[in-house]
Amino acid sequence: MSSGHIFIGETIGTAVLILLGGGVCAAVTLKKSKAKDAGWLAITFGWGFAVLAGAYIANGLSGGQLNPAVTIGIAIKTGDWSNVPVYLGGQLLGAMIGAFLVWVVYLGQFATHLTDPEVLAGHGVDPAGPVTKDDARNPGGPVLGIFSTGPEIRNTVQNLLTEIIATTVLVLFILTQGMTNGLALNGLGILLTSLLVVGIGLSLGGPTGYAINPVRDLGPRIVHSLLPLPNKGGSDWGYAWIPVVGPLAGAVLAGGIYHLAFA
Amino acid sequence: MSSGHIFIGETIGTAVLILLGGGVCAAVTLKKSKAKDAGWLAITFGWGFAVLAGAYIANGLSGGQLNPAVTIGIAIKTGDWSNVPVYLGGQLLGAMIGAFLVWVVYLGQFATHLTDPEVLAGHGVDPAGPVTKDDARNPGGPVLGIFSTGPEIRNTVQNLLTEIIATTVLVLFILTQGMTNGLALNGLGILLTSLLVVGIGLSLGGPTGYAINPVRDLGPRIVHSLLPLPNKGGSDWGYAWIPVVGPLAGAVLAGGIYHLAFA
Amino acid sequence: MSSGHIFIGETIGTAVLILLGGGVCAAVTLKKSKAKDAGWLAITFGWGFAVLAGAYIANGLSGGQLNPAVTIGIAIKTGDWSNVPVYLGGQLLGAMIGAFLVWVVYLGQFATHLTDPEVLAGHGVDPAGPVTKDDARNPGGPVLGIFSTGPEIRNTVQNLLTEIIATTVLVLFILTQGMTNGLALNGLGILLTSLLVVGIGLSLGGPTGYAINPVRDLGPRIVHSLLPLPNKGGSDWGYAWIPVVGPLAGAVLAGGIYHLAFA
Amino acid sequence: MSSGHIFIGETIGTAVLILLGGGVCAAVTLKKSKAKDAGWLAITFGWGFAVLAGAYIANGLSGGQLNPAVTIGIAIKTGDWSNVPVYLGGQLLGAMIGAFLVWVVYLGQFATHLTDPEVLAGHGVDPAGPVTKDDARNPGGPVLGIFSTGPEIRNTVQNLLTEIIATTVLVLFILTQGMTNGLALNGLGILLTSLLVVGIGLSLGGPTGYAINPVRDLGPRIVHSLLPLPNKGGSDWGYAWIPVVGPLAGAVLAGGIYHLAFA
Repeated sequence: MSSGHIFIGETIGTAVLILLGGGVCAAVTLKKSKAKDAGWLAITFGWGFAVLAGAYIANGLSGGQLNPAVTIGIAIKTGDWSNVPVYLGGQLLGAMIGAFLVWVVYLGQFATHLTDPEVLAGHGVDPAGPVTKDDARNPGGPVLGIFSTGPEIRNTVQNLLTEIIATTVLVLFILTQGMTNGLALNGLGILLTSLLVVGIGLSLGGPTGYAINPVRDLGPRIVHSLLPLPNKGGSDWGYAWIPVVGPLAGAVLAGGIYHLAFA
Repeated sequence: MSSGHIFIGETIGTAVLILLGGGVCAAVTLKKSKAKDAGWLAITFGWGFAVLAGAYIANGLSGGQLNPAVTIGIAIKTGDWSNVPVYLGGQLLGAMIGAFLVWVVYLGQFATHLTDPEVLAGHGVDPAGPVTKDDARNPGGPVLGIFSTGPEIRNTVQNLLTEIIATTVLVLFILTQGMTNGLALNGLGILLTSLLVVGIGLSLGGPTGYAINPVRDLGPRIVHSLLPLPNKGGSDWGYAWIPVVGPLAGAVLAGGIYHLAFA
Repeated sequence: MSSGHIFIGETIGTAVLILLGGGVCAAVTLKKSKAKDAGWLAITFGWGFAVLAGAYIANGLSGGQLNPAVTIGIAIKTGDWSNVPVYLGGQLLGAMIGAFLVWVVYLGQFATHLTDPEVLAGHGVDPAGPVTKDDARNPGGPVLGIFSTGPEIRNTVQNLLTEIIATTVLVLFILTQGMTNGLALNGLGILLTSLLVVGIGLSLGGPTGYAINPVRDLGPRIVHSLLPLPNKGGSDWGYAWIPVVGPLAGAVLAGGIYHLAFA
Repeated sequence: MSSGHIFIGETIGTAVLILLGGGVCAAVTLKKSKAKDAGWLAITFGWGFAVLAGAYIANGLSGGQLNPAVTIGIAIKTGDWSNVPVYLGGQLLGAMIGAFLVWVVYLGQFATHLTDPEVLAGHGVDPAGPVTKDDARNPGGPVLGIFSTGPEIRNTVQNLLTEIIATTVLVLFILTQGMTNGLALNGLGILLTSLLVVGIGLSLGGPTGYAINPVRDLGPRIVHSLLPLPNKGGSDWGYAWIPVVGPLAGAVLAGGIYHLAFA
């Protein structure tokens, strides 16, 4: 695989991942969506099949890793770090494109939702008042959850631990797949991984909304901060490092467990 | 594959697709159905397994494409347009047969639903007044959603964009499947595609109800306009071109991305 | 495969099918069940995975057909009717055993449910009055739905048509599986079939509860009529022929379509 | 496979199984979880994908049995009991580690839930009164269901029968898999088994919460009794033998059926 193929594959694949993953969050959150309030099971299956879509499309070009935690876990396993920067670059760019596309797909829904008095009141946003970009009292506005994760209970240690543990399961699952020699996953491996992501969401997503992927959280958060959305509130940058550092730590932990127990 | 096999395969396969896909919409919509109000997750899984059923049954005869967007995407990929008209003809005929069968399966439920005062009042239909075939104020009557898609927010640009983007994901997924050399998908490929369709529904179906297939929308809409259903209201022909043009544009876009990035 | 293996395989496999299929109906219906009111999606997935369980366990002995409609469809396809009686015998016996085991698993729940005044009043059962075995006004008592299917709207023609069409899809799906040469389905084929059954339930189960299998309905109905359940009401024998004749007609129709279009 | 590999594989795999399985129970139970009240379908899919995760990760080291009932069933089938104690030891240790990790992931949620006056009142716990470790009137406190199973109706015979029958289905399914020669399951087999576990939960989980695995219940119950959780109530040791003995009896029954009917 050339660097160009890797970059293009990861960009397109991660864009699809975030388009579908952010899409299901938009679908269940926004007013005037047919999937409004479809529930947690819908969200978790939506993210799982988002992994299926992105990883499958990217598979032939880059192996479809779509996640710096996966990329670093594989690098720790194989000892080959040469393409890691290309992977990470494509992944971050793709995540931003995907988040932008979610906005395009749900354009009217965003506009309706963000001007709905009931929605705004429920989030403590006063449309007549000044829009602060980073409001400590209300760090996540009415649509931030469509872009990025946020904790139900804000506690640095627990939030980090949750992301570390959940990511360790994900990366260990991928590292122990027989088919991950080098990069490529086959069709069945991608299916199993996508169902695992459903499972991680169902089981470990309750406290933080399971980023388990640094760019899944960071890319859309950047887009949230840039998009001209009225009454969007802050992008909760104070929390932003946790869904980056936690998954990366989980990848290192998974790599370590792999070398200790499985190699 | 002979033209005859292709036509028969696509007709039967698309009929099964729409029978099950329209069926789940009937199941969750109509009064006196055991699945009444089963929710968005039921609808999206129902459509996904409808793809599984139709594509699998048709696979040996025609490859089971069942969707002009898929057929055109494959033609752009392979450069072989010779059988495209046969595919499209079978698909449209099959979609109409499937929609007719939905009506047969839910015969009593349609009759009950369309004479229920509460239902009619909720749709602004006055059973004592004249039934207009195309009512601008109420383009979608109480059962049109069982046949065709309709937008939550009526906005040509956004509705088109949503259908284009959702179809691009679908067709790109199929084009990048290793097994789509020529036409045939194998069993695992069909399973993955059907789960992808669940995912597209969950994630991108919120604004327009995800036609992502021109005949899936047009065929049943024709049947809706022809069936002798009391109080059915109009067939919303003003919207009908969007779920045809949008998916076709998505197919072209996917074909272009394929040639630029994957070929 | 010897007749003995076939009989044992079909008996065990169909018992597992009905144990899990009837089990999910008990789980969502009965008081004091953790799955009470889990909804239609739970029921349809429960039946689908019941097919997975039974067909997989029986596969090595008998091919895991578990359904006279499937057996007759395959006989029409292959022209080999020699083992059909053995298959059907095992299937009916297995269905009865399975229904009996549902009662064993939910013993206390049945007792609680059938003596609950609220439940009984909702079904028009007067516990102080005489228990009639076949009550025309109330053919399905409070637990008959755990054993057998029943229509939401009682209409012979429509109910038959619904069962015929739904079974045609099922049997055509199985007949067109490349792997059904002779009898055996492989693991992936069983998975796809079980997901198809989820889909048929979601899409076509609304009017009649989708028997799509004569013994699935008849076997448990016999057990319902024999079990010493208080206040159980009648077994609705007036409807019992429809979920037998409809699926058999669907099997013949599927066999005909197979020979006309696919052979 | 060496004893060391088996022990490590079963420990890690069972830890993942219980982390995700207990995790989904925490996710739907605890206050301040995003999955609060996601329902029975979420619980059953969560446990199914927990099996997928644990069995897949452990597969290369130990075959990924993760369940004494499975281990004993395989030993009865193969006649090879040499590694059974190693398997069981790893499984029990892993189950305890997994339950501990659930607590870590949901640390803040546990603290919030167990001090919530409404929750405590609903469980008859008086935070001002003495905390009894084993309260006959209230054997399961507000969070015991996250760790261990408990019956809806407490009846030794029925509870045992339910666990025996459910486990028999599970073990028979695994024993009749062609791929279980020796120990290893392949990827498709693991997927099918995990979906079977979803099905067993949906269909047979209503009365007792389907332990179907002695260490799945015993390991977390030990951890529940040890963890310093305020107001946790008793660990319901009076029930603890049933989800151990029932599944083991089911394994023996499945082994017997296998030898009688399938060998």
